[in-house]
Amino acid sequence: MRGYKQPTVSVIGASGYSGAELTKILARHPSVKLDKLYAFSQAGKKTTDLYPWLAVDMTYEAYDGEFDSDICFLTLPHGEALKLVPDLRNAGKMVIDLSGDFRLKNAEEHLRFYGREKPDDACMTYAMPELFHEEIRNATAVSNPGCYATSIILGLAPLILKPQDSAKVNTVCCSGISGISGAGKTAKTELSFSEMNDNIRAYKVARHQHTPEILQTLGTSATEPSFGFTFTPMIAPLTRGIYTILNIALDKHLPVSEITELYRSFYISAPFVRVREMPPEILHVAHTNFCDIHVAESGKDGSVVVITAIDNLVKGAAGQAVQNMNIMLGYDEALGLT
Amino acid sequence: MRGYKQPTVSVIGASGYSGAELTKILARHPSVKLDKLYAFSQAGKKTTDLYPWLAVDMTYEAYDGEFDSDICFLTLPHGEALKLVPDLRNAGKMVIDLSGDFRLKNAEEHLRFYGREKPDDACMTYAMPELFHEEIRNATAVSNPGCYATSIILGLAPLILKPQDSAKVNTVCCSGISGISGAGKTAKTELSFSEMNDNIRAYKVARHQHTPEILQTLGTSATEPSFGFTFTPMIAPLTRGIYTILNIALDKHLPVSEITELYRSFYISAPFVRVREMPPEILHVAHTNFCDIHVAESGKDGSVVVITAIDNLVKGAAGQAVQNMNIMLGYDEALGLT
Amino acid sequence: MRGYKQPTVSVIGASGYSGAELTKILARHPSVKLDKLYAFSQAGKKTTDLYPWLAVDMTYEAYDGEFDSDICFLTLPHGEALKLVPDLRNAGKMVIDLSGDFRLKNAEEHLRFYGREKPDDACMTYAMPELFHEEIRNATAVSNPGCYATSIILGLAPLILKPQDSAKVNTVCCSGISGISGAGKTAKTELSFSEMNDNIRAYKVARHQHTPEILQTLGTSATEPSFGFTFTPMIAPLTRGIYTILNIALDKHLPVSEITELYRSFYISAPFVRVREMPPEILHVAHTNFCDIHVAESGKDGSVVVITAIDNLVKGAAGQAVQNMNIMLGYDEALGLT
Amino acid sequence: MRGYKQPTVSVIGASGYSGAELTKILARHPSVKLDKLYAFSQAGKKTTDLYPWLAVDMTYEAYDGEFDSDICFLTLPHGEALKLVPDLRNAGKMVIDLSGDFRLKNAEEHLRFYGREKPDDACMTYAMPELFHEEIRNATAVSNPGCYATSIILGLAPLILKPQDSAKVNTVCCSGISGISGAGKTAKTELSFSEMNDNIRAYKVARHQHTPEILQTLGTSATEPSFGFTFTPMIAPLTRGIYTILNIALDKHLPVSEITELYRSFYISAPFVRVREMPPEILHVAHTNFCDIHVAESGKDGSVVVITAIDNLVKGAAGQAVQNMNIMLGYDEALGLT
Repeated sequence: MRGYKQPTVSVIGASGYSGAELTKILARHPSVKLDKLYAFSQAGKKTTDLYPWLAVDMTYEAYDGEFDSDICFLTLPHGEALKLVPDLRNAGKMVIDLSGDFRLKNAEEHLRFYGREKPDDACMTYAMPELFHEEIRNATAVSNPGCYATSIILGLAPLILKPQDSAKVNTVCCSGISGISGAGKTAKTELSFSEMNDNIRAYKVARHQHTPEILQTLGTSATEPSFGFTFTPMIAPLTRGIYTILNIALDKHLPVSEITELYRSFYISAPFVRVREMPPEILHVAHTNFCDIHVAESGKDGSVVVITAIDNLVKGAAGQAVQNMNIMLGYDEALGLT
Repeated sequence: MRGYKQPTVSVIGASGYSGAELTKILARHPSVKLDKLYAFSQAGKKTTDLYPWLAVDMTYEAYDGEFDSDICFLTLPHGEALKLVPDLRNAGKMVIDLSGDFRLKNAEEHLRFYGREKPDDACMTYAMPELFHEEIRNATAVSNPGCYATSIILGLAPLILKPQDSAKVNTVCCSGISGISGAGKTAKTELSFSEMNDNIRAYKVARHQHTPEILQTLGTSATEPSFGFTFTPMIAPLTRGIYTILNIALDKHLPVSEITELYRSFYISAPFVRVREMPPEILHVAHTNFCDIHVAESGKDGSVVVITAIDNLVKGAAGQAVQNMNIMLGYDEALGLT
Repeated sequence: MRGYKQPTVSVIGASGYSGAELTKILARHPSVKLDKLYAFSQAGKKTTDLYPWLAVDMTYEAYDGEFDSDICFLTLPHGEALKLVPDLRNAGKMVIDLSGDFRLKNAEEHLRFYGREKPDDACMTYAMPELFHEEIRNATAVSNPGCYATSIILGLAPLILKPQDSAKVNTVCCSGISGISGAGKTAKTELSFSEMNDNIRAYKVARHQHTPEILQTLGTSATEPSFGFTFTPMIAPLTRGIYTILNIALDKHLPVSEITELYRSFYISAPFVRVREMPPEILHVAHTNFCDIHVAESGKDGSVVVITAIDNLVKGAAGQAVQNMNIMLGYDEALGLT
Repeated sequence: MRGYKQPTVSVIGASGYSGAELTKILARHPSVKLDKLYAFSQAGKKTTDLYPWLAVDMTYEAYDGEFDSDICFLTLPHGEALKLVPDLRNAGKMVIDLSGDFRLKNAEEHLRFYGREKPDDACMTYAMPELFHEEIRNATAVSNPGCYATSIILGLAPLILKPQDSAKVNTVCCSGISGISGAGKTAKTELSFSEMNDNIRAYKVARHQHTPEILQTLGTSATEPSFGFTFTPMIAPLTRGIYTILNIALDKHLPVSEITELYRSFYISAPFVRVREMPPEILHVAHTNFCDIHVAESGKDGSVVVITAIDNLVKGAAGQAVQNMNIMLGYDEALGLT
């Protein structure tokens, strides 16, 4: 796949929010050429009508199974990519899928959390660049992480994955707050302005589909987790952003400074992770591909509070997808993202 | 109708935003008894599930044409009240309709602005309490004004309706900004939080259905208006409230103080109109039945700027409806509204 | 104190947000008479200018130490009530203080969390009606709980305080999200609209002054807690409301249904606590004195997720203060609050 | 000035919102080199602390009068640029001032609207690129238009400035709604989140300082305007954006299609003005340098409604300033802006 002068890229499912963000980034990317935007219910419409801020003038085309570009991004509702990806891979296309279809190795967990069967082998390289850079570089088809999963995994990985004589994680309790664009561009009463303005609402407590993805990535499973894990997702009245509070119980006390140092060193080569001295804010990361992390507290009893923030549409979706594409193409992973 | 010790009241179409506001006011009203809440798609659901803030425990019932209460409020989508009101009136019920069905005298204008035919005589007393107190007191069936119409008519009436040697209005240009609850509790992509947060959008410019209602009430018509009239409605990212800028061109200059005095004297007996020295704010009137009015500017060329603010769900709907009920029942018009 | 036909009430510090909410409730309360509103920097101004939505016409007066009413509410910045309350109590006034000045029994903890010394005996009955009804009924001076403290204590009390053979709480991790009115009516850049719109920000992680108040009320202390306790407060872009996620680790598994039943029975006589089957929402409790509680999840490892929601200005401040006044006066505790 | 390979640019007053937006654009601009950021109260702080989303790592320096770069942008409170610009011009620097200091030719009007005296000759080329491209190209010091002024002038210019046998403008009534960032990064109670969330507020009706700027640019004056002009500014709960409703009274009727065509042809060479078929939305232009314009209505009486939308921080400030710099340097005017 490498060696293209300027590979062509198309997006299937381009008319949603992640698709629009992807269009924005790809249209300005210096080393790929944005070719086609495919949509379904919106086919025939123009980018200038749906997303005038894009300053891109293209028409959404219906997808008929013919794919001529070199690289394919898929931003489709869960279940749809499963049907399209096999043909794309057979045709030798580079594939980056943003849905949940190919994230879970365990088909049973997929059934339990997505309510859908999938083939046992329907799993692609889980493309979290900060953890699996090598695998991504060697892959031709990857599965882009979920938005909550990105913010939670990046906030936990140093303490859980770092091989060392350090403290062991016993339990993790996450509170995650998402902007409402995370629910996609859909007409639902409960996501209307009048229902969400001035409101906060928890949902899918301990049942969110990113749970098995997080646990799988951290080396354990949702069925038999090696540490306690509880995740409470919420939506709040903002369009973009994910903010997570990670309450981690270690089996011994580590001072904040030591944990901060561990995080700094873990992410030393990660251009989009910033370990900061102050609590993150959504406005600090909105419209960027950064994940800001702050080690806020460490109690004598081993309790630790880590806080992370990302833009769900960028680092939680389109930005990370392009970061993965850059790695797959052998480019600087930050190309077109700053 | 007068003489009831404590008349019973029911609401048909109670599960929408205006219905909920009406339920809140009627449930606390000292001199009526809230009897039944009728709904359609939401029949069978409970107030405690749909609107827990109501602190009212009732079940929405399906409406089968049987109406046992003394007074009927209808908060239905346009077109539905037309079907139900005749039977209710024949049965001797007191009727207060919050839709646009019975507002316009001119069936042609109704067709043009609502896109629906209606019988020529389908018109009830237009119940703007500050203008038609006597008629309302004598009526048994009234049509409650629209939200924009309320805020605009109250801001124009003193200059247009007051018989005097004063200046004549040549043209009126209105900009009206509405909170999004004005569009009702519906699932529409363009009213989702992600589409309206941080956004402003004009719509139905010079075509809004409140236009003929405003002109009819001010003594002229949409077809042959006696003064120029342009209305530009917008929605902005707030749930409640209507804010209107009224640019009025008079044929001669009147100082701000004189116009303010004219407004004060016009509304001297109106308990819910406040003529104020400062520009109104939505927060000043939210959750109240007040209409705040400010005469902001008067140019030497006869131009005048009047600004008004109301809560669209209260003075623009449910609150005004109860104010009308109070008048019809011979109660203090502010009963249960402060 | 009991036996007053209609006692008179005044508020010192009435011009802030809690003061305005208090004014609203007291002005409509059927069995007390609102007498005076005292303010400091706003003395001389009128309620009709500062809070036109109140529909109350009074002038804020400067407080000169003379207090003629029967009952005194104080809504002052921390540290100020300490100076005024002794005289008020000596004069035989009934006192309800909404600040943090008299909440903590331990003067050292007060110094640590409020950064101010206070006399050892500067502590009044901690007036959480759902826990200390009897003490409040017998008190003439009470300290009204903090907003976060209210929402967290009510969410934990049944599991921690209920004497039974049941599971023991080992650790509690709270994430609390507050509306921005909780910070008061102050001019701070970081609380300006442009800084908080579309934003979320954690602050005072594990250092919030409500921590010792929560622990003291739950029978332990911030200095030597008998269970692990971590509290992460955040602000989000809404004006009113507190939403808390309580991650509780029990030493054994209890099913959700059993815990829910425990909560129901614990709050059986509490008119303002609603144990609900669905996650609470801020819009469900905004402008009400309710605390909604939902037992969301209980893992086999003993982990429990409880979610609570209140309006910070009502149940978290003014509403609860009036609830306490009602109890102190021997009234129905819900009087004037629904 | 032209002929620089890559001129150096610095910003005086860089720590405010316009300064941050300018920093963002200049740091990514392909043909200038961002050199220094000067601030006053924020001197010594870092961009990574004040605006982490910038992804720029620089320190705000105190300005001591020494200016070494080729180009100077000034984003200072009104009155401050007056003191600094003469020295900068004497030193041969290219100057782009974003304040109101050098916009008005008439010192009396400046005094009346800004409350400050200024020298009669303190006026620089008024740099609205769509109107004065040639003058800007030849200038070495320009005054960047105000945000409201930009959105209003662009919406009126074709009808007022276009020499033709067409209709003459008699009066203009503007309603303008601004995002709150337009008020700058300041601590003011009335701009706090709690005061502006769910609120709309008019201010400075017919007294806004952009009025004389608009009239001067359209060929007349605030003192003796050749057409009626009334401007009502408002703020609404969004951070960015200006939305204006322009009610124009012509002396004869022109159909919408003809006016639209006039606008299209007037802006044929303007890369950042889009004449559109639908009402603009703030979300369509947010974070872009576009001005969207829609001719919404044209009545038989000669009334016309034109609606415009811009991002106040981009086309209304920093973006337009860079557009001007591009023109002054002989670059493509859109360089670094898309």
